[in-house]
Amino acid sequence: MDKDVSGPLQDTHVLGLDFGTLSVRAAVVRVRDGEVIAEAVSEYATPVMDRVLSAGDGRELPPDFALQVPGDYLEAGRRACSRAVSASAVEPGSIIGLGLDVTSSTVVVTDAQGTPMCEKEEFVNEPHAYVKLWKHHGAQEQVERIVALAEQRGEAWLPRYGGTLSSEMLLPKALETLEKAPELYARIEEILDMLDWLTWRLTGSLSYSAAASGYKHMLQDGAYPSPEFLGALNPDFADVYTTRMSHPIKPLGDRAGGLLAEWATAFGVPAGIPVAVGHIDAHVHAASVNAVRPGQMTGVAGTSTCWLLPSATLMEVPGVFGVVDGGICEGTWGYEAGQSAVGDSFAWFIDTCVPASYHRRAEQEGISIFDLLDRLAAAQEVGEHGLVALDWWNGNRSPLVDARLSGLMIGMTLSTRPEDQYRALLESTAFGARVIIENYEAHGVPVDEVRMAGGLIKNDFLMQMYADVTRRRLLTASTLQAGAHGSAVFAAVAAGAYPDLPAAAQAMGGVSRRVYEPDEAAAQRYDRLYAHYRHLHELFGRQDRIMHDLRDLRAQALSR
Amino acid sequence: MDKDVSGPLQDTHVLGLDFGTLSVRAAVVRVRDGEVIAEAVSEYATPVMDRVLSAGDGRELPPDFALQVPGDYLEAGRRACSRAVSASAVEPGSIIGLGLDVTSSTVVVTDAQGTPMCEKEEFVNEPHAYVKLWKHHGAQEQVERIVALAEQRGEAWLPRYGGTLSSEMLLPKALETLEKAPELYARIEEILDMLDWLTWRLTGSLSYSAAASGYKHMLQDGAYPSPEFLGALNPDFADVYTTRMSHPIKPLGDRAGGLLAEWATAFGVPAGIPVAVGHIDAHVHAASVNAVRPGQMTGVAGTSTCWLLPSATLMEVPGVFGVVDGGICEGTWGYEAGQSAVGDSFAWFIDTCVPASYHRRAEQEGISIFDLLDRLAAAQEVGEHGLVALDWWNGNRSPLVDARLSGLMIGMTLSTRPEDQYRALLESTAFGARVIIENYEAHGVPVDEVRMAGGLIKNDFLMQMYADVTRRRLLTASTLQAGAHGSAVFAAVAAGAYPDLPAAAQAMGGVSRRVYEPDEAAAQRYDRLYAHYRHLHELFGRQDRIMHDLRDLRAQALSR
Repeated sequence: MDKDVSGPLQDTHVLGLDFGTLSVRAAVVRVRDGEVIAEAVSEYATPVMDRVLSAGDGRELPPDFALQVPGDYLEAGRRACSRAVSASAVEPGSIIGLGLDVTSSTVVVTDAQGTPMCEKEEFVNEPHAYVKLWKHHGAQEQVERIVALAEQRGEAWLPRYGGTLSSEMLLPKALETLEKAPELYARIEEILDMLDWLTWRLTGSLSYSAAASGYKHMLQDGAYPSPEFLGALNPDFADVYTTRMSHPIKPLGDRAGGLLAEWATAFGVPAGIPVAVGHIDAHVHAASVNAVRPGQMTGVAGTSTCWLLPSATLMEVPGVFGVVDGGICEGTWGYEAGQSAVGDSFAWFIDTCVPASYHRRAEQEGISIFDLLDRLAAAQEVGEHGLVALDWWNGNRSPLVDARLSGLMIGMTLSTRPEDQYRALLESTAFGARVIIENYEAHGVPVDEVRMAGGLIKNDFLMQMYADVTRRRLLTASTLQAGAHGSAVFAAVAAGAYPDLPAAAQAMGGVSRRVYEPDEAAAQRYDRLYAHYRHLHELFGRQDRIMHDLRDLRAQALSR
Repeated sequence: MDKDVSGPLQDTHVLGLDFGTLSVRAAVVRVRDGEVIAEAVSEYATPVMDRVLSAGDGRELPPDFALQVPGDYLEAGRRACSRAVSASAVEPGSIIGLGLDVTSSTVVVTDAQGTPMCEKEEFVNEPHAYVKLWKHHGAQEQVERIVALAEQRGEAWLPRYGGTLSSEMLLPKALETLEKAPELYARIEEILDMLDWLTWRLTGSLSYSAAASGYKHMLQDGAYPSPEFLGALNPDFADVYTTRMSHPIKPLGDRAGGLLAEWATAFGVPAGIPVAVGHIDAHVHAASVNAVRPGQMTGVAGTSTCWLLPSATLMEVPGVFGVVDGGICEGTWGYEAGQSAVGDSFAWFIDTCVPASYHRRAEQEGISIFDLLDRLAAAQEVGEHGLVALDWWNGNRSPLVDARLSGLMIGMTLSTRPEDQYRALLESTAFGARVIIENYEAHGVPVDEVRMAGGLIKNDFLMQMYADVTRRRLLTASTLQAGAHGSAVFAAVAAGAYPDLPAAAQAMGGVSRRVYEPDEAAAQRYDRLYAHYRHLHELFGRQDRIMHDLRDLRAQALSR
């Protein structure tokens, strides 16, 4: 009997997993058109450890630490997958692949079997044995030495990272572990990005993602920094790549391995289905919004914002966070730039700076405090608040790549209201985005269009502001949770459902009909505020060292 | 039969009235030793009109307006006096004089009989017919023209005001009235500081206080700015002094007149008792803390802070708010400098920037939110918050005399807490104080000691910080409400109970035993923050025009 090949029973599906800072989202996605059939979210059990080592003996942590428990990722992933698969009610056998993405560089250290060092009795109270979350900034001293030495030696890979590095990358975090916890380091056999550790756990085979290797592990033109370079940093570091990071690197969309039976059972999917090479959380959004061709910029606006741009040509763009061959899509150069705190700084403001009367008012109106502040801010004319802010509450990733920069606000008077400061914060992130776009174009990397993804696309006021400030037409993702969806696109490629990523993204990805057109009158008014932002940006970002000195004073005070 | 002349029945008393921004305080004070026998406070009926003309038709007011109703002062004064006298239970006949002080320059316009223009039917909806409170900043354009012309013509009086003027002074406010409300101006017969209007109302005779005339009306070396100068500003302004400000000027401690019977009855004191020449609210504190001799600086720290310094010599100190012969004490030069927002900016922070959780915590602990924040801020090491602020939420009075400057805070991160920003604000005012003291000394006006008065002296943490930041031993007033007490000292002089102000201040004034000694270790740590403050002070106060441009953008946006 013939089967109706176009019917739903014949549809195949993939599972996409998006591991964020606090939780993981799993999505069951239809291969044919990218439709999300079901989703589930699960939080990590242990809150981010940034003051005390709560998973150990509760010891105080140095400033700028951000640690996690690796097992939490697996356990939360298991719960999210089984619930999403169950909720989807699809035929389990129709699930043909799995893809995952994780924040990066979120670093795990393990023994040769992949057991995290923090799970060993002797290291349970050693902070460096835990996951160093992407926003762990404890390796600032190390990254400064790495950059200084690379400059001095004229290392060819340095310009690929905009001429400087971030303490968020894997290499400084690994050096920090060597220097701060040498006994632990001596026992470490594998240093991995969480995304590679997870594909290892799920498949039993260890390989590295080309994207993380390029963006976070300093792999350029097929080679890591040399043992001579590493040894000059610290003699015991010379062999870090050869002894602790020596497994094969695979391109995006490749199969990392087949799903182990124990996980297949836990998830409710067939054993052995392809697991795609892991990817960086922000980067999978480019696939979700079908922006994997040269000139198509994707802005992933959430707690932080990542600006991704495939390009046909390799240019040196100062302050770009990384340019990696095949880093977004095989066959093109993938540029990454970023803003370190966007939604995070809005949330900081809501948590820290909004008086009770505003919360009461929002409650009375039955709306969120964000909605109330957005409405009050949106009711203002451009410039009415008389404020300008620098959006560096978590440093500046691009173009300055300086985690030690900090926030600034100027123009406050006794009449300044919460909605005024809130709007100035929002605007500061739009100005930061404009700096990044202008920086790409000024250095010969064209930005033909901008597609937005991430949780902040639900904020109409903010999206319109970004369109006005950047004078760009903004297309927005079809879903607020494009991460899991994007990972599902890679799963489909790994499963062989499409010949390559562009074909899969074309079929499964896309943007909603929500389009924000720039308003020229508003744009001209924003120009005047932006001129001040640019001026302060250069002043405090490049010339004046006050923000750095204030951080030093803070560190000295805390150590007294 | 002989009387016991040392007994309480033989004590004489004076009444001191301190008219603040929102309320008046009356104190019954013993002449012999300055003991405050009783006090009473009464608020003005109409809230400060800064958005709409609530006493008229509710029309919207331009930005930076701050208006009041003159009759409110008399009515509140009547209530406060009668209650204080009644509460004191002293023999009414023992009250031998009355003194008063008012914020300045708080300007009233009247007809020849002293009836305020706003009380006339035809001007009830005319904003300029109302009291222009000291912090009314509507005359910014006028003051800029006055300064520019005085510079151009090399007017000899300009250096007496630190080379520039504030829009808070009487002359720009009067010019603003002429130019914005010419029909009203044509009908005005007297333009007065509120302190002179009140002594006129109470005594029936109109004279001007030497202090207000010097500090606020541009009287220097016995002369006002010339008709030529005034006419060049505006032809209709040439005769402002001769037609609308032509009454006698009397020195501090002189008798303005005898108390009219109707007021004596209302207050419960003898008719005809001497009413002292009115004085500026901050300035009377120098008498209260017995700091009327050369080199004795008084800091009056409240919503704003006034720094007063008598000196034997006349020097040109840039940015000083005024230097006036006999302005603090007859026979010396009285220097005044100021910080425009101190307690005001702390209150702004509490009202606008502190989340509900902190208010709940304060409530649970049964303490004020100020006390909670002070405690949390005081628990920190110097520099721990990583912040520096410029204390210009209401402009900078000294040394920059620029009301259009605004606030700045730098160094915020996602870890910044409310107590961090609060402490940075407190520190910014201490740094502002240090700039003022250093400015005096750098220009040849010695500061031998510092005595503090005003509501903020109750804040131990703040006072110790001021001592540390300025490296000065701080003596503090015996009372939080030294204003009414200080006016009582002038009443005693006017009543002839003492030969002069120094004698009266010596007998009646003084400081409590609360002394704050500078801590050298803390001082050295503050030095590093202060270096940044100084740098930002010069940068944004003198070089960069960003704060001015943001104000212009705000005004343009509000006018759209």
